[in-house]
Parts: sequence; structure tokens; C-alpha cells
Amino acid sequence: MSRTLTYGMVGGGPGAFIGEAHRKAIALDGSARLTAGCFSRSAEKTREQGAALGLDSDRCYADYKEMAEAEGRRADGIDFVVVVTPNATHYEICKAFLEAGIHVACDKPLAVDSAQGEELERLAREKGLLFMVTYTYTGHVTAKYIRDLIRAGEIGPIRTVMAEYAQGWLYNENDWGGKQGEWRCDPAQSGKVNCLGDIGTHVENAVAAMTGLKIKRLLAKMDVVVPGRKLDDNDQVLVEYEGGATGVNWSCQFAIGSDNSLRVRIYGAKGTILWDQERCEEITLIGEDGISRTIRRGNGAVTPGAAQYGRLPAGHTEGWLEAMGNLYDSFTRCVAAKADGTFTEDMIDYPTIQAGIQGLKYVEACLKSSENGNIWVTL
Amino acid sequence: MSRTLTYGMVGGGPGAFIGEAHRKAIALDGSARLTAGCFSRSAEKTREQGAALGLDSDRCYADYKEMAEAEGRRADGIDFVVVVTPNATHYEICKAFLEAGIHVACDKPLAVDSAQGEELERLAREKGLLFMVTYTYTGHVTAKYIRDLIRAGEIGPIRTVMAEYAQGWLYNENDWGGKQGEWRCDPAQSGKVNCLGDIGTHVENAVAAMTGLKIKRLLAKMDVVVPGRKLDDNDQVLVEYEGGATGVNWSCQFAIGSDNSLRVRIYGAKGTILWDQERCEEITLIGEDGISRTIRRGNGAVTPGAAQYGRLPAGHTEGWLEAMGNLYDSFTRCVAAKADGTFTEDMIDYPTIQAGIQGLKYVEACLKSSENGNIWVTL
Amino acid sequence: MSRTLTYGMVGGGPGAFIGEAHRKAIALDGSARLTAGCFSRSAEKTREQGAALGLDSDRCYADYKEMAEAEGRRADGIDFVVVVTPNATHYEICKAFLEAGIHVACDKPLAVDSAQGEELERLAREKGLLFMVTYTYTGHVTAKYIRDLIRAGEIGPIRTVMAEYAQGWLYNENDWGGKQGEWRCDPAQSGKVNCLGDIGTHVENAVAAMTGLKIKRLLAKMDVVVPGRKLDDNDQVLVEYEGGATGVNWSCQFAIGSDNSLRVRIYGAKGTILWDQERCEEITLIGEDGISRTIRRGNGAVTPGAAQYGRLPAGHTEGWLEAMGNLYDSFTRCVAAKADGTFTEDMIDYPTIQAGIQGLKYVEACLKSSENGNIWVTL
Amino acid sequence: MSRTLTYGMVGGGPGAFIGEAHRKAIALDGSARLTAGCFSRSAEKTREQGAALGLDSDRCYADYKEMAEAEGRRADGIDFVVVVTPNATHYEICKAFLEAGIHVACDKPLAVDSAQGEELERLAREKGLLFMVTYTYTGHVTAKYIRDLIRAGEIGPIRTVMAEYAQGWLYNENDWGGKQGEWRCDPAQSGKVNCLGDIGTHVENAVAAMTGLKIKRLLAKMDVVVPGRKLDDNDQVLVEYEGGATGVNWSCQFAIGSDNSLRVRIYGAKGTILWDQERCEEITLIGEDGISRTIRRGNGAVTPGAAQYGRLPAGHTEGWLEAMGNLYDSFTRCVAAKADGTFTEDMIDYPTIQAGIQGLKYVEACLKSSENGNIWVTL
Repeated sequence: MSRTLTYGMVGGGPGAFIGEAHRKAIALDGSARLTAGCFSRSAEKTREQGAALGLDSDRCYADYKEMAEAEGRRADGIDFVVVVTPNATHYEICKAFLEAGIHVACDKPLAVDSAQGEELERLAREKGLLFMVTYTYTGHVTAKYIRDLIRAGEIGPIRTVMAEYAQGWLYNENDWGGKQGEWRCDPAQSGKVNCLGDIGTHVENAVAAMTGLKIKRLLAKMDVVVPGRKLDDNDQVLVEYEGGATGVNWSCQFAIGSDNSLRVRIYGAKGTILWDQERCEEITLIGEDGISRTIRRGNGAVTPGAAQYGRLPAGHTEGWLEAMGNLYDSFTRCVAAKADGTFTEDMIDYPTIQAGIQGLKYVEACLKSSENGNIWVTL
Repeated sequence: MSRTLTYGMVGGGPGAFIGEAHRKAIALDGSARLTAGCFSRSAEKTREQGAALGLDSDRCYADYKEMAEAEGRRADGIDFVVVVTPNATHYEICKAFLEAGIHVACDKPLAVDSAQGEELERLAREKGLLFMVTYTYTGHVTAKYIRDLIRAGEIGPIRTVMAEYAQGWLYNENDWGGKQGEWRCDPAQSGKVNCLGDIGTHVENAVAAMTGLKIKRLLAKMDVVVPGRKLDDNDQVLVEYEGGATGVNWSCQFAIGSDNSLRVRIYGAKGTILWDQERCEEITLIGEDGISRTIRRGNGAVTPGAAQYGRLPAGHTEGWLEAMGNLYDSFTRCVAAKADGTFTEDMIDYPTIQAGIQGLKYVEACLKSSENGNIWVTL
Repeated sequence: MSRTLTYGMVGGGPGAFIGEAHRKAIALDGSARLTAGCFSRSAEKTREQGAALGLDSDRCYADYKEMAEAEGRRADGIDFVVVVTPNATHYEICKAFLEAGIHVACDKPLAVDSAQGEELERLAREKGLLFMVTYTYTGHVTAKYIRDLIRAGEIGPIRTVMAEYAQGWLYNENDWGGKQGEWRCDPAQSGKVNCLGDIGTHVENAVAAMTGLKIKRLLAKMDVVVPGRKLDDNDQVLVEYEGGATGVNWSCQFAIGSDNSLRVRIYGAKGTILWDQERCEEITLIGEDGISRTIRRGNGAVTPGAAQYGRLPAGHTEGWLEAMGNLYDSFTRCVAAKADGTFTEDMIDYPTIQAGIQGLKYVEACLKSSENGNIWVTL
Repeated sequence: MSRTLTYGMVGGGPGAFIGEAHRKAIALDGSARLTAGCFSRSAEKTREQGAALGLDSDRCYADYKEMAEAEGRRADGIDFVVVVTPNATHYEICKAFLEAGIHVACDKPLAVDSAQGEELERLAREKGLLFMVTYTYTGHVTAKYIRDLIRAGEIGPIRTVMAEYAQGWLYNENDWGGKQGEWRCDPAQSGKVNCLGDIGTHVENAVAAMTGLKIKRLLAKMDVVVPGRKLDDNDQVLVEYEGGATGVNWSCQFAIGSDNSLRVRIYGAKGTILWDQERCEEITLIGEDGISRTIRRGNGAVTPGAAQYGRLPAGHTEGWLEAMGNLYDSFTRCVAAKADGTFTEDMIDYPTIQAGIQGLKYVEACLKSSENGNIWVTL
């Protein structure tokens, strides 16, 4: 890469977990340098955070619109923006940066509804801009390896997929999970959905990214279980994919003992693949001989398309930040190629805005099913 | 016990897996001695098998009805009969022995439908006879320990239960699983149900036995997946229990790499319990502190009501036969107590005919749901 | 088999764990029937136990010598004797039965020292009698499978073997482990060795049985660790095998959290095999590709010579009693073949008296090494 | 922190794994910025690498001595240097920077022998400079948690420690492991030791860091196993610690299937702790009740002194780079405190030069033991 890319951030003020995580993930490979930001609705906090992060004060913006316009105009303006604000504001912010001609990386969920998502997609397409939605988990080397195995027909046509994302942090009716939990459980801030939007969409995305399957229809049971809660905290979804495969997607926030247990089990006509993001350095592959093979990142069997993202030798464990870093690795290569004029579509190896829209449609369909007595809803 | 009990067997001829397994399980503790049998529809095979097993030839019967009557009349007649014939014949055989005043242990499924089951139950009640349905897996010490933990409120009210039984042996469209698979997959022999009746009912029974939960309603998706098959081989069932808990029950016969993977995960308001019958010597118990505790059979924490069934010190692994043996341990103690006049209902610690009827009702409700477009069916 | 074999037992009175375990293991397959016994030094207890086990009173003997002579004379005398008495008495008892022309199965350790062992071996050879020493763990299907893999060269020449047997039951200085622990920890009853003889010899035997390696020399550190104890409870042994492979054998009785953790890890020039008796239904096999393969009993890959011992389909767990039963399975087939005149040496698939002698030599060499400042001792 | 620290690097040229790893680990938290370097013996490569890393050209030095002097003189000179050159050069390079008054972080092994190490220690002490030796693995949150548990007496006095570091990458006699393997296996570059110095010292350090135990004496068997090799690739070491605890340390480079398997098992009078760096997000803690507790990073039970290093919520996996980053986290806080005049000794929570010297003494003692027929050598 001839020069280091630069980026700006909207959101990610002092104490915000996800903004800091994005910055660390990008810093991991040094593929882009933070040069501008609007970190908070409070101009003062933005200034503080900017100073702490070593930004020039004239690139600490009180307002995201001002930032989009100013950076769009600068000769040395940011190459891309990272949007890590509350969900309800994603749409307007992303729109502003797209209109200013700036590539966008936006935290999931992409927007409030799929209509917003599709408008952003149209805009990005018209402007010829890149748009990543940061579904972290598919960034793992092992997740990419699974995708490659399935594409290569290793386990034959897929028959059924059992996928789940269980957490336990919101199990206690007297503990709403602090700041992180409170907005998620508050209809005023989260709309009609909590658990399904927060983690259920990762289930949907992981299955889609690994298997390439598209949901034809689904039947969802979204339950509000912990006393006092107003939004779903347990979602059990029957899925039918195009081509006939089926599946169950489960997401839950009161599964005591589960920290961040995203697991996917894929059963094909010729084999099975098991994946657990908390054991993200390995996959289990079972062939028709019924022998369970554990294959770890760094092993020679890992496909080159996946292995390229590994930074460390086998057994030197990589984790969540590396997965996020892998998304930015591909994204920044594409951004640089756009600048160089060498970009082609097949370079994209990150979750695109289409994946983000699928997530929103998944949520919408689940809500429709659940609100209507658990009926089948076609996507 | 003042004298060793005696038993007879119907079914279990040469080469029959399940009959031999029952005999081995009973032999393990020597709690009863086989003295009579009608092992096959072929009188010759019965004679052969009887001789191989050291029976007197006059107690090898060509016909089960004759056996029931003769043994019922003998002063030294069998104390109980073990019925391990094809499913469709359970009803008539059990009925004959009940009418002859003989206690019954019958392999699951109890009968072809719940009406038959209820008739047998009525008959057993009228005659004051014991009736066990041999759901093996709840015989494990660890399964009983889980039941005791839940009864004692260890994990609080149950919120959701994820249960499954996955096997892979019928994954191959060109391999129907030999004799064992062929009858299961044949509508003429199995009726309308294959996988759900064969292993799905173990899921239902395991959850019921461990949690005490009763199903209020369910919504089932029973699929015929492997090409060429005519009966279900993949069943995904949403369940609502009385009291509001929910769950997903999954049973599957084409999950490559799964041998006999019956697993139950129980999420309560105060804790979680995980159980995997292929790791049947241990449970995982997680409390509100989020720490996963692995507790093995033989550990001092295991409740006395469960621990009493262990034969070997901790780490000297027990397995499937011991689980089956545990069912017979309780059953034979009850049979002996009936003879002694010391029997009381609270001695029963084996799966009763009511459990067998529940299994049949579960299958019937799933069929109704699945045949009607996956609607909710109240039990 | 034309007729059921009969056996007698010396030891195994009321409450004795190991005697009951042998009886259960034999009963599992019904390959022999108990018809005579001298269960205790107390004639009364022997009568009681004999009655409880359904023996004829004239075959309940007050004295093992009387039993050996009487059974040796009877036309319907026992085919073999099972010796499950305290270790120090094995030699004289086994000798008496050999002299009476009766095959012997003796619990480990075979005798007090290797000189006794060699005398018994000579006697058995002269009399043409079979002699099994019941090292249970090598009876597991998976242990036999590993032996077959290594014989077939699957992992190439062996380079190093890390083997261990850790238990925790004697960790507490204030708890000597009840009756089972007290005699083991008492020099008056156990001689100079506790842990190494009790479980360390299982390590030696497991490695020998699986790999076929013979120990050339060893260097042992036998420690008395728990305060108040007088005999070793922690043994760390460096081993050199003929041919140049090396290894570490560890046995320990105060490893809190270890129930019965016998594990063997075998590293060859072309692969690795891992085995854990508490997960005795599976092995891990790793080839030069570095992929870990978990292969479970019942899988098609298991060699026929090992698979033949399985009683239940894959996933229907077998355990310790089945392993012990497998020893008796081979032993009784050999005993029957001796009677039929069809016996050949290659039928032997159980631990012989030579294995028992090796165990005694192992202990003797370790003692010599440890008593002399941890020097190398050649076997 | 009022200002971002700056650092320089010696070594870590294009393609060097460990230099890049150090840079990524420091970048993770942004606790220091790279501003100077002598990345290679080739001035050209240093310039190239400096440019790629965005350094000013006048701070890219052709010679490390020049760099030490120049940076020592500059008002804005580097706060510390990171030394990641071949082992044999550590001593002279570290010395130069210490003499220039610059704090040092040096990759392990610290030097060629303990005499060199002690000289560096003396120099650092005289100059009042900090000196870290980057034993990565003790940086894991879970490693620190174990240290805290043991200090708090959670498992009582330690009785025995089984520790090991197994790798498989050098198993093949025809594959010397590329550049990384070739220098390790070459006596001209590595001196008398390969495996023991490379990974065996991590075993020694991990045990020391977690338990606080000091080695009193040891008995080592260092073997050259893979055909054609000239230096040890399998080391089995018996250890006696001050206070009476014992242990076995094993390091191996031909253990096929082991990537980077550093494991420590610590058995105390009241409990057991198990740790596996490839599962570095969790520990297993077993108390006198024999129940195995798996406690994951992020759990409330983790001690504050360990938990403070976590960056991500539980279940968002951290790995090797984070462990390395944790070393730098503490080190840079100490460096900053030195600058501020707020430093106190108890702030040190990274592996010091004393740990590095212990590692060298461990190697020297093992060599002496092994070369003299595996005798006890007192440290």
C-alpha cells in the first residue's frame, strides 16, 4: 500500500465499548490512521476524546454533518468513516457521509428498517462507494474457512443448520445490565426488538456467510421471559432456506453460563461442520466416515483465502479483535484499491450493506411471524 | 431381598439387539433370573434361544398367550415379563400378561397410540400391577441427579429447555441402516412416524423426567429429508410447557458425526444445567456466579437418591447398560415389595406407563401439527 | 460354546468392591457361572456370601486349599478360579489352584515380588494352564484399537510416551480413604509400595500393552507427600525403552479433582495417539497433517480385532465393567478352547502372567532407583 | 497518561515475526508510539522498514550503538527500546541502551548465559532503569488470576506441578521448520540448547510466575530425538522446589498435533488449578469438594488485579497479542511513572530481568544435569 489510509469516527466517545474496539481492531494492523472524529453529541467530549487520541483539534467536529461536509471537501480528507453511534442514528449519519462521497463502515444493525437500508444501498451504488456492516464474527479465519469448505462442496448439499447465540448477562430481573443493557431493553431506544436485533442477527448472518443459504420463509417465537422486561429476550426461529434446507436459529440473553456463545452446526449430505465462536481458533469437520476432525487456524488444511488473514502461528491464539481487524483488512484494501483505480468486486471479503439489509429483513419477518401467532412469513 | 426374582422375555431372539441388552442389564446386578421366554414367532428359534440361555424347555413357549397363561398359573411363575418385540405388537402382548396378573416391563414406544396406552394403564391399575416403559437414558445416575437438583430449586423456575437427539446412521440415501433401519423407515412397519417415535420421544421423556415440566402445546416441523425416505428423519419442535417455560426439541437421523447424541440444556432463573448422554458420567451446573461446575458421578455432591444407583467408584466409568440396569434395579425392588406387601407408590423410580403414554401423545400432537402446516397443538 | 464354563472365587466377600466387580463383569456376558467360592477367611461369611450368590453349600469352602483340592478332583469342578484377595496372599492361593490343575485369573498385582511371579509362571507353564492378571484398562475396545494402530505402523516408530494415572482420593491428611485406603497406606499390609503398585503399574501396563515397548532402564522419584503417610503417594519416573524411545510415567493419589485419570499420550515419528480412560469410548489420532481425529468405539475405522469386543452400538456408552468383561471374554474363550483342545497361543488377548511379572519388576526397579538417589536402573 | 510514550526497536525487520508481534501488541492499546529503529544489520532494510512504519528517516539508524547514543541524547528521545534481535546479540544491545539511560524490553532469552544476565541486571539497577523480559504467556489475564488465587491460599501449599510445552512443527527429519527452525536447530546460532531454551524456559517461567515457587534442584534428560538433529528436541526434567514441592517439566518440538501447547497443572493440599494457554480465556479450579470449576475471563470471580487487563467483555475472546499487550501495559505504566517520579516497585506486573536470569540458570542447570548422566543439580 503506497500510503496509510485515514479514517474518521462518528460515535465512540469516552467509555463507549464498541468505538474503542473498532479503533483497536484497526490499530492492530495499522491499515488506517484515525484523523477526524465526532465522538459525542457533546462538543466538549468530542474535543476531549480527540485530544486523547491525538487528533488535530480542527478535525474534531461538534456535528457529524459538518464533519461529513468538511472532510468531503478536504484534499486530505478521511478515506472512510466508521459509524458506531446508537442504532437509530445510523441511517442519517451514513447518508450524510455517502452524500459527501466518503466510504462507510457502519456497526450493525445497519438501520432501523430495511427501507432505510435499501435507500443507503442505492445511494452507495449511485456514488460508487463501499459500505461495510461490521458483523464481527464472520471475520474469523475459521468462519472464512468454513465458507470455503462449503463452497467447495466438502459436506455436500446442506440439509439442516442448528445455529444459536446464547448470552446470560441479562438473566437477572433486578439487574438490567448497566448502560449496555438498559438501552437494549428499552423500547424507546430499541424499538420493537432487543435480543433478536442484538444477537439474533449475528446468527442469521453467520449462517448466511458460512453457507450461502438464503432464507425462504421463517416462523418465529419471540418471547419476553425475564420478569419486568418489555422486549424479547428469547427467540426461537424455524427457518426454511431456498433449496429446501431447514434450520433452527436461537438467540437468548438469560442463558446463565453463556458469555457469548455463538455456535453454528451445519449438517450436509456428505458431512458436518461445527463452529463455536468461543473456540474460534478451530473447526470440527466430520466426513462420511464419521470421524471428527478438529482443524485449527494455522493448519495446512486451511484454505488460502481464509489462512491469509492469520497474523500469528498456529496455537498463538487470535480472538475477537483479530476477527474485527480482518473485516477492516479487506475493507481497507478495497478502499485503497478504489483510490488506486484497481478495485474489482471480487476483492470484497467483508460483510456488505446487502448483509446488513438481510439482517433487517430477518428481524422484520420474525416480528411479523411472532406478532401473528407464529405463522410462516416469506422473505 | 429374600429370594431372587424370575422373569420371562417376549422377543429378544437370536441376534436381536435390544433383547440381549435388557438381559445384560438385568444380569449386571443379578436382581432377576430369566426362567421363561417366547423369543420369536418361530417356535424353533425360541427353543434354540432358550437352550442357549439355559432355560428349561417347558418354559420356552411357542406363543406369548400360552406363556402368559401358563406362567400366570404356575406357583413358581415369572415375577415379571420383559416385552421387547416390534412396536406394533406391544399392546396385545402387554395386555395378555397383565390379564394373567404379571408385572410388565415394556420397551418404548409403549404402543401404537395413546388410546392403547391408556387401556393398558387402566388394566394395570385395576390389577394392581406394575408397568415400566424402558426409557433407558433417564436411568443414568446423572439424569437422576439433575432431577433432584431441579426439584430442590437449585436453578430456580425453568425458563427454556433446548433438547436434542441427533444420530447420523441414516444419512446415506443408499444405505437404509440394515435391519434396524429398514423397519424404522418403513411405513408398513412403523406407521406414520420414524425419527420422532424412535428418538424424539427420548427427548420428550428426558426433559419431562429431569424437569417435571408438562407440555401445554407444541408446534412441530417433521421433515423427510434424505432422498427416497418416506417417513420423518428430522423433527424440529417448538414447545410451550405449563407454567410458561418454552423449549425446542430436535431429533435427527442424518446428523453425520452424531452417534447417539441426546443432550439437554436447561436454563432456569437461577442457573443452568447441561447434560450429554455420551458424557453420561458428568453434568455441568452453572449458578448465578456464571461459573461452570462439572460434577461427576461418585462426587460427594451427587444427591443420595441418585448416587445410590452407582456401582463403581468415581472415574470407573458406567454407561448405557448401567442406566438400563438402574431402571430394573428400581423396578425389581418394587416387584419384590409387591410380593412382600411392602410396596408403596413413592418407591417407584423408573419410567412408568404414564411416561409411555406421554410419549405417544407427544408423537400424536407433533403429527397433527406437522400435517396441518405447523400449527400449535394443545396436548 | 457348547457349555457354560463355571468358575470359583477366592476373596470377594460381603462388601469387597473388586470381587463384586469381577462377578458383574463376568455376568455381563454370561460366559461363566459362579459355582464355588472361598469368599472370606471367616467360614461364616463365606457361607453367607455363597448363599446370597446362590451357590450350593458344599461348594462354599472355609479354606482355599481345601477348595483347590476339592474342585480339582470333582468331575464338574470349576474351569477357572478368580483370585481377588489381599495382594500378599495371591502367590500362595494361585499356586494352590495351579497345582490342582485349575486355570487362574488373578487380580493385580500378581504377587509380592517378581520371584514369586516367575515361580507361578513356571508352574503354569509346566501344567499347561492359563493365567490372566486382570489389568482392567487394556480391556477397553479403544485400548485394543490403539494397540492395533501402532502395530500397523500408523504413527511410525514411537519417540516419546507421556503416561499418567492421577487420583485425588487420598489428598487429605486427615482422611486415609477408609478401608480401601488404609491397607494401601499401611506398610504392614502393602510392603514398601503404595501408589506405584496400586496405580503406577497400570501406567506401565497400559503403555506396554498399547505400544509393545519394553523398558530398558528407568529413573524413579517416589515421594511420600501427604503429611503422616509412610508410603509413596507421588511417583515421577523417567523411562527409556528398548529401541530408544523415552517417556515419563506419573502416578499420584492426591491430585484433587482427578478421579481415575489414566491417560496415555504416544508420540511417534508419523503421528500421535491420545487416550484417556475416563473418555474410554474414544481415541484421538493425529497424523502428519496435524489434524486431530476423534474416533469413537463403533466407528467403522476401528480395527476388527478391537471392535469385536463392543456390545453396544456407537454412542451407547460402555465403561469399566465392559473393559473387565472383555478380559474375561478372551480368557473364557481360551479356557473353553483348552477344554476342547482347540486352543492356540494366538488366541490370547488378555493380560498374561508375563504382564504381571513386568509390573512387579517395574516396581522393584523404581524402588531401587528411588532408594539410591534417583539413579538409572536397568531392568 | 499525560503524553504518549515513544519507543524504538532493534531488530524486527521486514518479515521478522516477533518484531511485528511486539509492534502489534503495543499498538493494541496505543500506549506507546514507535519513533526510532534499527531494524536490520542492513542499513537499507532498516530505511525501508522505517519508511513503511512511518518513521522519520533521521531516526532510522544503521547501527544500534549509534541509535542508543543518539536517542539517549535527544530531548525527545525514545522512552524505551524493544530488543527483538537474535538471542546471541541481546546482551550487547541491551547493555548499550542501558548505558544510554534508556529502559529496555528484551525478548526472551535475555542473554546467552546467566553471567551476562546478571551484569545487565546490575547495570539496570545502578542506572535506575526498568528491564522487562517478554515472557508472553504470563501476560494472560488467566495466568495472573492463577497467581492471585495461589497467593491467596486458594489451593493451599503446592504439592506437585506438572507443566509442559509441546509443539509439533519440527517432527519431520526432512523439514527443519524453515528460517524459524533452522537457526533454532543450529548449534552455531543457538549454542548448546534448542528446545529447552526456546520453549522449556516458558515452562519454567509459567510455573514460577503462577506459583511463586523457586527451584531448589533439578534432574534433566535432554534428548536429541529427530534423526539428523544436533540439539535437544525433547526435555524431561524432574524438579524439586524450595519448600518441598516437586514437579515435572516437559518440553518437546516433535509432538505431532501440538501447536503451542503450554499447559500447567498445579496440585495443592486444598485444590487444583489447570491452565492451557491454547484455552487461555479460562482456568479450571478444583476445590476439596472435587468439583471442577471452569472460570472464564470476564467472570466476576476473577481477581481485580488480573481482570484489569481485560479489554473485551467475557466471551469476546482475547489471545496471544493481548497477553503480550498486557506486559507492555504494565511496563509502559511503569516507564511513565518513572518519568513522572511516581514509580514504586509494587507497580511492576511484568516479567523482570530476574525472571530472565532464572530462565538462563534453569537452562544451565539442565545442561549440567543432562551432560553428567541425569544427576541432580542444585540451583
